[in-house]
Amino acid sequence: MKAEPLKDFSRLCVHTITTKRWELEEAIDRYAEADVSGITVWRQWLDGRDPAGAGERIRAAGLEVVSLCRGGFYPALEEKSREEAIKDNKQAIEDAAAMGAPLVVLVCGAIIGQSLVESRKQITDGIAATLPLAESLGVKLAIEPLHPMYADDRSAINTLASANDVCDELSHPLVGIAFDVYHLWWDPDLAAQTKRTAEANRLFAYHACDWMTPTTDLLNDRGLMGEGCIDLRAIRGMVEGAGFDGMIEVEVFSNRWWEKPTEEFLQAIKQSYLNHT
Amino acid sequence: MKAEPLKDFSRLCVHTITTKRWELEEAIDRYAEADVSGITVWRQWLDGRDPAGAGERIRAAGLEVVSLCRGGFYPALEEKSREEAIKDNKQAIEDAAAMGAPLVVLVCGAIIGQSLVESRKQITDGIAATLPLAESLGVKLAIEPLHPMYADDRSAINTLASANDVCDELSHPLVGIAFDVYHLWWDPDLAAQTKRTAEANRLFAYHACDWMTPTTDLLNDRGLMGEGCIDLRAIRGMVEGAGFDGMIEVEVFSNRWWEKPTEEFLQAIKQSYLNHT
Repeated sequence: MKAEPLKDFSRLCVHTITTKRWELEEAIDRYAEADVSGITVWRQWLDGRDPAGAGERIRAAGLEVVSLCRGGFYPALEEKSREEAIKDNKQAIEDAAAMGAPLVVLVCGAIIGQSLVESRKQITDGIAATLPLAESLGVKLAIEPLHPMYADDRSAINTLASANDVCDELSHPLVGIAFDVYHLWWDPDLAAQTKRTAEANRLFAYHACDWMTPTTDLLNDRGLMGEGCIDLRAIRGMVEGAGFDGMIEVEVFSNRWWEKPTEEFLQAIKQSYLNHT
Repeated sequence: MKAEPLKDFSRLCVHTITTKRWELEEAIDRYAEADVSGITVWRQWLDGRDPAGAGERIRAAGLEVVSLCRGGFYPALEEKSREEAIKDNKQAIEDAAAMGAPLVVLVCGAIIGQSLVESRKQITDGIAATLPLAESLGVKLAIEPLHPMYADDRSAINTLASANDVCDELSHPLVGIAFDVYHLWWDPDLAAQTKRTAEANRLFAYHACDWMTPTTDLLNDRGLMGEGCIDLRAIRGMVEGAGFDGMIEVEVFSNRWWEKPTEEFLQAIKQSYLNHT
């Protein structure tokens, strides 16, 4: 069943990378002025900033801190590199806690020259190694399955089923999934796996954008909602039918949009949120 | 279990599109001189030619006609277009029979503005409509599942599981699957689905190339075997362990290689076939 159109911006969250030409402070002010309700902060936006202060500023502007993006990249050929990744993920969890972000999004990583099976094992071990800290700080961890075209060097977790399998193995209430339509829309198993995700109480986040035809760049040619071929109302109906009622996070990497004035892009996001999401 | 290196060219087949600057006659002569054993003819190479004559010439050169590539593209919003697609697929089956090709490879199609579920239904119906002809001429039809990055407008069948589901529905000994490492290498379900494919006697063809990092073009930036991240010996071990012993078809779309002299490319194919496939 397709979802009804969204009537207001009470569930609209924007990722700082979407409006990447804005520094954190400008993004906060502009989002608040534009009636955006939530912000997901990418870690680069915390560079040189105190996470606690950033969190206070976000809340003072009336915005919700939705998540910190992104941890992950656990697999490596050398043990030393895997240990560094775990250390970096602990830092992300601490920053999220300081900022008041309830969630860290994980782009889990993959390494050329190592099987995807081994990489998934290292991902599982890496998340497990950070769980005591996440638990002590009350921070959730969301595995984001990435499109299979990123299986070479970005993520060995490429379907919702595979993310659920890792969650099952870790079996911890703080470990769940970030569902991004861009990565998952094509999956013939999507309805069943969405149900599985929701029933396990691990549908932690929902990211929206669109798939362009043709796609001219594997990374930075995402569409704004409605510009591409994804049936966004059908997929939102699927996740909401399974019980999801959280933020709808707009995460658009687009060289095309990034060339335009960012304020124009933000207004277009709001229109496409109401008309197509 | 990884496959052993290939010792000779008795299972090497090349697709005419791989050496696309060569007309059919030149491709036949050069393949034969180079000790290539099989040829898969793309339909454009039959333009203006008599398929029966082409088949005779191929066999006279000592090459095996492995398949005709490609039928498919069944889904369409209008019934008239779907009927035209069926007509075109019947033509492909007739041309294959005339040429003496035992198999037509199907790139099944997808249409923007229509759900993948509906497209898969139209694909199933489209194949079914051509089965009486295929049966009367003894031509096999191989569904080629395409990488999920082609789910917008090339194929609604994007996993080996999904291809097997369509085969199960049609349940006909002439309907099987073309297994292309480029499209399938990332799938966490690959071993189980390969076993399912082989046990149903429908592993009809095996296509090899490699996945480049970074991939700069979604269509024409494939790697030659060994240039990318696919564990080709592991996957060949998987299909051969399941009983496959047919041709290994080199199908490389590469603007990079197409810029070089085609004879140089063919020699590189032979080297990468022995060293990496």
